[in-house]
Amino acid sequence: MAGLRFDVLGIGNAIVDVIARAEDDFLVNHGMHKGGMALIDEAQAEALYEKMGPTIEVSGGSAANTIVGAASFGARAAFVGKVKKDTLGQVFAHDIRAAGVAFATPPAVDGSSTGRCYILVTPDGERTLNTYLGAAQDLHPNDIDPEAVAAAAITYLEGYLWDPKDAKDAFLKAAKIAHDAGRTVALTLSDSFCVDRWRDEFLDLIRGGTIDLLFANEAELHSLYQTSDFDTAVSALRADARLAVVTRSAKGCVIVTRENTQAVHATPVDRVVDTTGAGDLFAAGFLFGFARELANEDAARLGALAAAEVIQHLGARPEISLKALAQDNGLLD
Amino acid sequence: MAGLRFDVLGIGNAIVDVIARAEDDFLVNHGMHKGGMALIDEAQAEALYEKMGPTIEVSGGSAANTIVGAASFGARAAFVGKVKKDTLGQVFAHDIRAAGVAFATPPAVDGSSTGRCYILVTPDGERTLNTYLGAAQDLHPNDIDPEAVAAAAITYLEGYLWDPKDAKDAFLKAAKIAHDAGRTVALTLSDSFCVDRWRDEFLDLIRGGTIDLLFANEAELHSLYQTSDFDTAVSALRADARLAVVTRSAKGCVIVTRENTQAVHATPVDRVVDTTGAGDLFAAGFLFGFARELANEDAARLGALAAAEVIQHLGARPEISLKALAQDNGLLD
Repeated sequence: MAGLRFDVLGIGNAIVDVIARAEDDFLVNHGMHKGGMALIDEAQAEALYEKMGPTIEVSGGSAANTIVGAASFGARAAFVGKVKKDTLGQVFAHDIRAAGVAFATPPAVDGSSTGRCYILVTPDGERTLNTYLGAAQDLHPNDIDPEAVAAAAITYLEGYLWDPKDAKDAFLKAAKIAHDAGRTVALTLSDSFCVDRWRDEFLDLIRGGTIDLLFANEAELHSLYQTSDFDTAVSALRADARLAVVTRSAKGCVIVTRENTQAVHATPVDRVVDTTGAGDLFAAGFLFGFARELANEDAARLGALAAAEVIQHLGARPEISLKALAQDNGLLD
Repeated sequence: MAGLRFDVLGIGNAIVDVIARAEDDFLVNHGMHKGGMALIDEAQAEALYEKMGPTIEVSGGSAANTIVGAASFGARAAFVGKVKKDTLGQVFAHDIRAAGVAFATPPAVDGSSTGRCYILVTPDGERTLNTYLGAAQDLHPNDIDPEAVAAAAITYLEGYLWDPKDAKDAFLKAAKIAHDAGRTVALTLSDSFCVDRWRDEFLDLIRGGTIDLLFANEAELHSLYQTSDFDTAVSALRADARLAVVTRSAKGCVIVTRENTQAVHATPVDRVVDTTGAGDLFAAGFLFGFARELANEDAARLGALAAAEVIQHLGARPEISLKALAQDNGLLD
């Protein structure tokens, strides 16, 4: 894949994270599902922000975090997503470009402001998300550059794109371009509630071959197959997907193919500060390894390493070079 | 001082920090003084931001950080400083109020945008500041509420206020109100280059009794007395100041009075991530202890504890309750 312009091109919601620490009681009192992601409107966003403690602002967005992580490993990376031409939109564009990612989606000049994800981090490090999509939901098929998609070894999509209608169409357009050019299409299921909203359509995408590589965590997999039994869900997944990776937090991950199932350990950490971005960064490492044609287990080890880095600090993007970290751990030359 | 409305009221530049990691070469190539603070204009701010790596945004401002830290110890706290009514101004106001601090300064509706401090954190954890003051420099004597200042046991001022003319006048107005009401006036010297700009005026403030309690680090003290010898500088300080605390990074601090000099150890830390806010948070602990009429050494121990917390993560405001931390360490009941 060395002749291509990009190792990976991500398409997702362009979002700035607004992160605060909170007690479990705060989640209970506001009817939030701990660990989940809820969509909120602008009025709800303002009311929530009013009640939140002191925050930090840092660029986020699930696929965007993944693409920044892949770039940190050394991937040639691109991102497509919609911000508005406002302060937070400028922050998002600055940060993703400063991470070495090609980002050419023009910002919206009117309409909703740049999307925000309000993240509440409880004392156990778990994060609960409330997302105001804002400008991100205006991502349109016209924002997909066919030449860029065809020039990427992998096109990586987030399940969250399925929520806004235009973004879903952009998703399908990109997948078709990628396959017509003989490239790989990857999807993350994003969130168990997102899977609950779009279960049948996601299953159609996987079974119909629109998706070549699937990322899911345990909760998303259980939601997809409406079972609480992991082995039952994995068996169903083996029948449906060509290649899938299921992440299991501290239990590591399982790589699922038609032929077999391989488990890879998580990278141990001293202290979990904030789990935000764990799945996103796992995908970053795996996608980088996949693009470089490493064995699946070796790609998963890169994913585990990146996830371990990101859960040891606030925020969902790496604070250090993942390439250097992987070299220090003997996982890359 | 229990009958007063506030333990401490801070007046300072209202600033949002824009933090990025950088190599030492970056500082050298851009002619920056490592560890110092330089004032930049809006065009320089934009050019610098363009070249910086991915950032996080978090409310800052030296005195504002101190006041938030004091509130985290349980102080009744207020802050006076100027933002614009824009996105970053809303972030600043949200964060300081969410920390439990009374903040009533009306935002500017036109003029410069909310001030930003571009912070470059090198691999050793040292931080180098470039500040675009923006709306902060429009702080005016009219923004000083005499009733609030008279109702605060301590009025705390930052030396950085001496840079803009109107802010300097606001500083002097507040100091006079505080003294007329029989309260304490405290000052931090802020930065060795700031001291270099205003040395004679700062010495006049200290010798003339406008300042009852002075905070300085070693570099600022050496700049104030234009000497590289610590003992010489401390001797000069003893003659000039009623009460001063000199912070010395890992060497702890020295409390200087007319009568004697006492050293207090720094609180050991595992790993220095970002020294931004170390001095600000030391002042927070000391001011809280002073307002609660603790012995100077005990107040300094609270300062050392708060400084140790803040240098172990990115950003200049505490991530946990300093009251709980002090209780866990047996420093508060």
